Amino acid sequence: MTDRFPLNDLSSPPFSARHIGPAPKEQARMLETVGFETVADLVAAAVPEAIRSKDGLRLADAVSETEVTAALRALAAKNRVLTSMIGLGYHDTVTPAVIRRNVLENPGWYTAYTPYQPEISQGRLEALINFQTVVADLAGLDVAGASLLDEGTAAAEAMTLARRTSRVKNNVFVVDADTLPQTKAVLATRAEPLGIELVEHDLAAPLPECFGVLVQYPGASGRVAGFRELAEAAKAGGALVIAAADLLALTLLTSPGEQGADIVVGSSQRFGVPLGFGGPHAAFMAVREGLQRQMPGRLVGVSQDADGRLAYRLALQTREQHIRREKATSNICTAQVLLAVVAGMYAVYHGPEGLVRIARRVHHRAATLAAGLRALGVEIVHDRFFDTVMARVPGRAAEVVEAARVRGVNLRPVDGDHVGVSCDETTTPETLRLVWEAFGGTPDEPAEVAAALPAELARTSEFLTHPVFHSHRSETAMLRYLRSLQDKDIALDRSMIPLGSCTMKLNATVEMEPISWPEFAGLHPFAPSDQAEGYLELIGDLERWLAEVTGYQAVSLQPNAGSQGEFAGLLAIRAYHRARGDLERDVCLIPSSAHGTNAASAAMVGMRVVVVACDDSGNVDLADLDAKIDKHRDRLSAIMVTYPSTHGVYEETITEICERVHEAGGQVYVDGANLNALVGLAKPGEFGADVSHLNLHKTFCIPHGGGGPGVGPVAVRGHLAPYLPGHPLIDGGAVGPVSAAPYGSAGVLPISWAYVRLMGGDGLRAATEQAILSANYVAKRLAPHYPVLYTGRGGLIAHECIIDLRRITKETGITVDDVAKRLIDYGFHAPTMSFPVAGTLMIEPTESEDLDELDRFIEAMIAIRGEIDRVASGESDREDNPLRGAPHTAACLIDGDWSHPYTRAEAAYPVPSLRDGKYWPPVRRIDGAYGDRNLVCSCPPLTDYED
Amino acid sequence: MTDRFPLNDLSSPPFSARHIGPAPKEQARMLETVGFETVADLVAAAVPEAIRSKDGLRLADAVSETEVTAALRALAAKNRVLTSMIGLGYHDTVTPAVIRRNVLENPGWYTAYTPYQPEISQGRLEALINFQTVVADLAGLDVAGASLLDEGTAAAEAMTLARRTSRVKNNVFVVDADTLPQTKAVLATRAEPLGIELVEHDLAAPLPECFGVLVQYPGASGRVAGFRELAEAAKAGGALVIAAADLLALTLLTSPGEQGADIVVGSSQRFGVPLGFGGPHAAFMAVREGLQRQMPGRLVGVSQDADGRLAYRLALQTREQHIRREKATSNICTAQVLLAVVAGMYAVYHGPEGLVRIARRVHHRAATLAAGLRALGVEIVHDRFFDTVMARVPGRAAEVVEAARVRGVNLRPVDGDHVGVSCDETTTPETLRLVWEAFGGTPDEPAEVAAALPAELARTSEFLTHPVFHSHRSETAMLRYLRSLQDKDIALDRSMIPLGSCTMKLNATVEMEPISWPEFAGLHPFAPSDQAEGYLELIGDLERWLAEVTGYQAVSLQPNAGSQGEFAGLLAIRAYHRARGDLERDVCLIPSSAHGTNAASAAMVGMRVVVVACDDSGNVDLADLDAKIDKHRDRLSAIMVTYPSTHGVYEETITEICERVHEAGGQVYVDGANLNALVGLAKPGEFGADVSHLNLHKTFCIPHGGGGPGVGPVAVRGHLAPYLPGHPLIDGGAVGPVSAAPYGSAGVLPISWAYVRLMGGDGLRAATEQAILSANYVAKRLAPHYPVLYTGRGGLIAHECIIDLRRITKETGITVDDVAKRLIDYGFHAPTMSFPVAGTLMIEPTESEDLDELDRFIEAMIAIRGEIDRVASGESDREDNPLRGAPHTAACLIDGDWSHPYTRAEAAYPVPSLRDGKYWPPVRRIDGAYGDRNLVCSCPPLTDYED
Repeated sequence: MTDRFPLNDLSSPPFSARHIGPAPKEQARMLETVGFETVADLVAAAVPEAIRSKDGLRLADAVSETEVTAALRALAAKNRVLTSMIGLGYHDTVTPAVIRRNVLENPGWYTAYTPYQPEISQGRLEALINFQTVVADLAGLDVAGASLLDEGTAAAEAMTLARRTSRVKNNVFVVDADTLPQTKAVLATRAEPLGIELVEHDLAAPLPECFGVLVQYPGASGRVAGFRELAEAAKAGGALVIAAADLLALTLLTSPGEQGADIVVGSSQRFGVPLGFGGPHAAFMAVREGLQRQMPGRLVGVSQDADGRLAYRLALQTREQHIRREKATSNICTAQVLLAVVAGMYAVYHGPEGLVRIARRVHHRAATLAAGLRALGVEIVHDRFFDTVMARVPGRAAEVVEAARVRGVNLRPVDGDHVGVSCDETTTPETLRLVWEAFGGTPDEPAEVAAALPAELARTSEFLTHPVFHSHRSETAMLRYLRSLQDKDIALDRSMIPLGSCTMKLNATVEMEPISWPEFAGLHPFAPSDQAEGYLELIGDLERWLAEVTGYQAVSLQPNAGSQGEFAGLLAIRAYHRARGDLERDVCLIPSSAHGTNAASAAMVGMRVVVVACDDSGNVDLADLDAKIDKHRDRLSAIMVTYPSTHGVYEETITEICERVHEAGGQVYVDGANLNALVGLAKPGEFGADVSHLNLHKTFCIPHGGGGPGVGPVAVRGHLAPYLPGHPLIDGGAVGPVSAAPYGSAGVLPISWAYVRLMGGDGLRAATEQAILSANYVAKRLAPHYPVLYTGRGGLIAHECIIDLRRITKETGITVDDVAKRLIDYGFHAPTMSFPVAGTLMIEPTESEDLDELDRFIEAMIAIRGEIDRVASGESDREDNPLRGAPHTAACLIDGDWSHPYTRAEAAYPVPSLRDGKYWPPVRRIDGAYGDRNLVCSCPPLTDYED
Repeated sequence: MTDRFPLNDLSSPPFSARHIGPAPKEQARMLETVGFETVADLVAAAVPEAIRSKDGLRLADAVSETEVTAALRALAAKNRVLTSMIGLGYHDTVTPAVIRRNVLENPGWYTAYTPYQPEISQGRLEALINFQTVVADLAGLDVAGASLLDEGTAAAEAMTLARRTSRVKNNVFVVDADTLPQTKAVLATRAEPLGIELVEHDLAAPLPECFGVLVQYPGASGRVAGFRELAEAAKAGGALVIAAADLLALTLLTSPGEQGADIVVGSSQRFGVPLGFGGPHAAFMAVREGLQRQMPGRLVGVSQDADGRLAYRLALQTREQHIRREKATSNICTAQVLLAVVAGMYAVYHGPEGLVRIARRVHHRAATLAAGLRALGVEIVHDRFFDTVMARVPGRAAEVVEAARVRGVNLRPVDGDHVGVSCDETTTPETLRLVWEAFGGTPDEPAEVAAALPAELARTSEFLTHPVFHSHRSETAMLRYLRSLQDKDIALDRSMIPLGSCTMKLNATVEMEPISWPEFAGLHPFAPSDQAEGYLELIGDLERWLAEVTGYQAVSLQPNAGSQGEFAGLLAIRAYHRARGDLERDVCLIPSSAHGTNAASAAMVGMRVVVVACDDSGNVDLADLDAKIDKHRDRLSAIMVTYPSTHGVYEETITEICERVHEAGGQVYVDGANLNALVGLAKPGEFGADVSHLNLHKTFCIPHGGGGPGVGPVAVRGHLAPYLPGHPLIDGGAVGPVSAAPYGSAGVLPISWAYVRLMGGDGLRAATEQAILSANYVAKRLAPHYPVLYTGRGGLIAHECIIDLRRITKETGITVDDVAKRLIDYGFHAPTMSFPVAGTLMIEPTESEDLDELDRFIEAMIAIRGEIDRVASGESDREDNPLRGAPHTAACLIDGDWSHPYTRAEAAYPVPSLRDGKYWPPVRRIDGAYGDRNLVCSCPPLTDYED
């Protein structure tokens, strides 16, 4: 009987079998193609022995999806979500459920990539231009970008923008004394290596000579004051005026732009984005006309497609992924797209009249609160405020804060004598009663409360007049608008996104679900730590696990983007040298193949970049390395290398490179962008590196969100641990904060926590192995059709491959652009274009794509090669062929006569499988240069959409 | 200063402003078109004074979305979700997160309508054919339907199917003594009015003469026994053999079909569908070849489109919405599509090997449990079982159950001496330990456990061999499959679905979110009531509120579809008459315009249907009514009328009709299908009716789910309250249960609860008023182009309008089908076709559509009228024109030469707005007759998809 009902093989397939695309049978077929018996054989052949870890990862065994959810529920239960009235740039808000479900919880939005391919990104580009319009309108300035990381770093970027553009020669930057404390701290971290002197300043006093001044509007204390005169004085002196502003307050108050600000920064968090214990939220920057080409980060602009139809795309793209090494001025790559989409949609949903109503209600609550406190005999420090009331209670602040906490409300303990209370969209009369009780009584509620805002600052200018902010007021209309935008885009829920260096792997639902839970979503970043025990435990776990994975001794999760992780890592190196008295070490070696951010980050810590040559295979030229080390030996601070290299190859010499740099007294920074090729196989901290940043949004499953959020932890060996970023509201530390919130984008960390728990050590290693196998499978199958540019030993690559189109382009005129756009007709997002080598495509399949999808992609590439060959042979027209015409919209195939030498069907259905559910791009090829010449970066009038 | 910062108008817009489409300004424009100053004027003109309620609804004030979520969280917290091992057809299960998020929580799936328009329903039709394949394969039979309501009613439908088809003349139906108790009870409720005698039977004994026999496989007690001999004996005697089977067990056991079953029924709940305190779940029925045309409910079949391409559609449709009144054999309309999709996708996700592994693990747990109990000296009643262990503990059953409960586990107290313990997919070794402890000890765990299934019942036949069950094993592949299917369909998230009588209104996200919460989703229907306090409070609230809305005194939420509510209502009438000694009253008057289910329901309670004529305006002909009353006065049981009428008109005579029927001793049943035209304005219980059913999936925002779930509460006046359905596992009651679970589809009731709380009395009335205004606006604007068939006084209609195409068809050959299919090219789902009058379209806009969308629809209809006129004038070809060719796929426009007299652009883009995000149907017009002639109802081989 046992035979007829076998009771072995009872276990569920591990989660890794759901995460990893190819099943064992498929894996076997792939191995056969690549020419190996087992995955272990392949890995042994591909990965240099010198870097291999001896042991497996010491992580707890993998758990099931059910178990990980239970574990996260237990952690969530250890967080206590009180009513938050701490303020300081973080306010509770109501995320409209229709936006939560259909954006934040919808893979069509959160699995999308950065909109570098605008033809398949029109949906999120429109959402971002909505966001830009909200920001520019409310700021009262001309151009706003598509989001920055947080208010603190946005202020720092504004400071350096001012430094670049001001005619003033001194290095003084004036900071409003009433600026958010975390912004001050981030500014200090960023100013010091650049030699910028921060001067804290009471705005009433005369302005010292400076290249820029930052005004907080309203102030951290709640105070509302205009700054026209200050702005005039600053401008007269050649300084730029920066306002750090609250978007909600700006619906009632005269905009900073109208008062003379050149730059406005801030956070859009309170526009519907959950607190998330500090992030991710979309910060913003708007600038006056003339500064837009200096603006860091991404900018969405309006252009037109090949048929003259209005289309969106990233404007001035050369400022961005293509950051120009030594000349870089900012290392910003990531934006906070998903959160900017939410904030923009919040404005679409409420419209200007709704936003004003919310702002008035918030202000009314604050004014009522103040009136009640005064009735209780409490002194209110500022007469003019928007949402925050500063109460003076000599010697009683701690007691009041504790009394409120007991009642379920967190207030802000400013000092021993002052308590700050911030109202927000969720504040109810009942909340006010609890606060009054905490202060010691229950006043009679005033029948009528007067506004506490300066009459001369009443906003008179219009905002959000575009129809999009007036047309989606019912939930049905909103739902359909979101769906229509989503349908214009390709995200991972439609097809593979084979982006080299970006690791577009599965973002599993079970990993994503917890971030919506109120216990994770509702916590203020400065809530007392005993209310965040679940978060702190989760963060501690994740730091430990990432240290184990990377072979380092300490990890900080504070950096909220890879670029910030790089910056933090270099800061640690700098601080280490300086602590040892090595004040002169300021040279950073960077191989010529490096990602542009490396050089930009080095510049931000005041290092001088020295480029090291690479050989024809893309490997660091050891002779040149030696020469550069010799030349800069005494000033050598660090080398930054990416491993595996940006060429997708395991360099054999990495351990040697590390040794030579160490020998010269330098530190080794290994960029973790390609960590997906190492996890479980090799650890940078063991094979010679001192510090790395990781990209949790690449290797550890945080979704790309259409271009953010990212999370870029920094990991270091023990000697650098004291120099990890600190935070003034949590602890001191030798190095200041690199992000506004102590744990950066804490709200999305449950994703990576879940991923590690679900995979366990073996699963993580298996994922890496499959990523290597999949990349080599793609390379092997494409090799007969396209030259593969770089390979390591045995002709193998790591987790991505570069195919070289330069010869094809020379012979046929068909460019990487043509191939990328033609892939859209086949239903695919293009691989990375022309990085790290111009004229090439870099393909990273990741472990999550199954064999069917890999084959579908390969067959598309082979079919495209056939199309190229027909151009080469003269069978197809050199100028008018399916590649040049790509992508093809349905309209271009259906309207009017067809005058091309290829058929409509050849354009639309080059392979038969496209007949079952083809993706139709909403626009044809977009003319980027047209848009840059005619820069429009907010919602275009509807007439522009007409033909 | 107060002027510059006004602090009035502080309140948020109420939820009703999000639910109701048109904003006040739009409403004003609509009123102008319809010719009224105010909504109150319109309502006064449209709704007969005689039926108007005097007072507003006595409901609590509307709350905000935030408040309703908080209130539901508080209710949820009153439920306690223990580990459930009660069994009895309800088992805990793991819903794969990718399916939960992308089906259950995705408006693209849950807001879809029933797939009557197959061209825009290919996605869910494919999902349903997957479900049918799962059921047919596992049952070992030829054809399975697209789901039924629950196992109890499915068994009852099988019983009546057997009665219809057996050659045996007696009325005996034999029921396995080991059948689920709720199934027995539902069978009894259904059998009695039909004169069927139920005989409970030990399967080992010789079978009495009967027309059918039902076997539970495995039994409620857990026992597994084959029934080949019984089946042979039954067949020899002319009886049909029905098996009520467990799908998971069937992955290991010889299928019922192979043992001789003619019909197999059961529940697919444990295939990933949450317990939800009893439902909704998808029940199933499979039949052997020859019985398919007798099968109740919906059946998806394979057919082909105009281009010969494979396409799905509902097969044998005449059995369905078009139920033929007096000749009806079942009143089933609704299926449980959304849940059937989930169950089918669970099988797609796990594949046959995964299902077997789950089944083996469940069995291993049960066998281990039994071994441990035996080691503790507990007697195990049955040696052969699958997942359920029946333990004999003389006199100790209650004590053991309580000891388990204390440990967080619910067991089944069978009687004083027996405890049932059911294992499921979530049972862990730790669970077993808790159960053993409850029985009094901790046995040594046996090293190896033998299977406890009969060797001769080991399954040898294959199942789920189709590639779809083998191709989506990674989460990425599963996600894309779900997205690709969803993209084929039109649901409310794309455009208006103007279905007359179906009230396709907003299903707000905030209403939908709570049904996923574990506290609502995880409760077993037979959990002790002290664990379900939140549910019971919610159910009590909703019953009270619905009574207030309808003017009745008592409500039962048990019926899980409108048809079941009708049945329950008529049962109450029948029981009432009988309790008064009126045994002869069996005539049910039904107007000729009635929905087919009315007559079917009457037949099910043994009533004779007598049709009452309608006049030309679609109103009940009072003279004929009098005549029929006179003729059947002594036998008059009831009249069933729909109000407003199925013609979309407020009949003036409704109160008179009620009076005349009452005067003759009859009861008045008002079908609540059109309640959306009454809520807040008039109450059936006040204007003369005795009983109604409501459709929570129409009026109260439960989404249609692509064709289910539905919820059909029955509401009665006080004298009928004692005759509302009972439930054996909860209480006794004069009338038995109509559903398997005591509160039917309890799991979706939070949706309606939230809707009522969010709207409040004023909001509900405003919604009704807007629905009336919108319908009249559509009618007024379409009237110049299409004749509006029926109107009431002042030329006004209620909440829907019928446009008459019969003359157009006669003159041009253009049919309602042509118009319906052409609407697809314009991006719309067609209105209801040819109901209640052949050759017409019935349009119900509902209150949730905003003016832009209404205008877009109206303009599409006007443009179509222009196309028709061109046919009439001879400008367009009579046979080859855009209407006849509709719908047009992209492929049919792109492939090959275009030989039609109209252009491609005329086909695809008849109005310019379609160029921005057109919906492309995946197939052309489907040939239904072809599919009925060549009936294929499970996944077709892939070769069939090839051209």
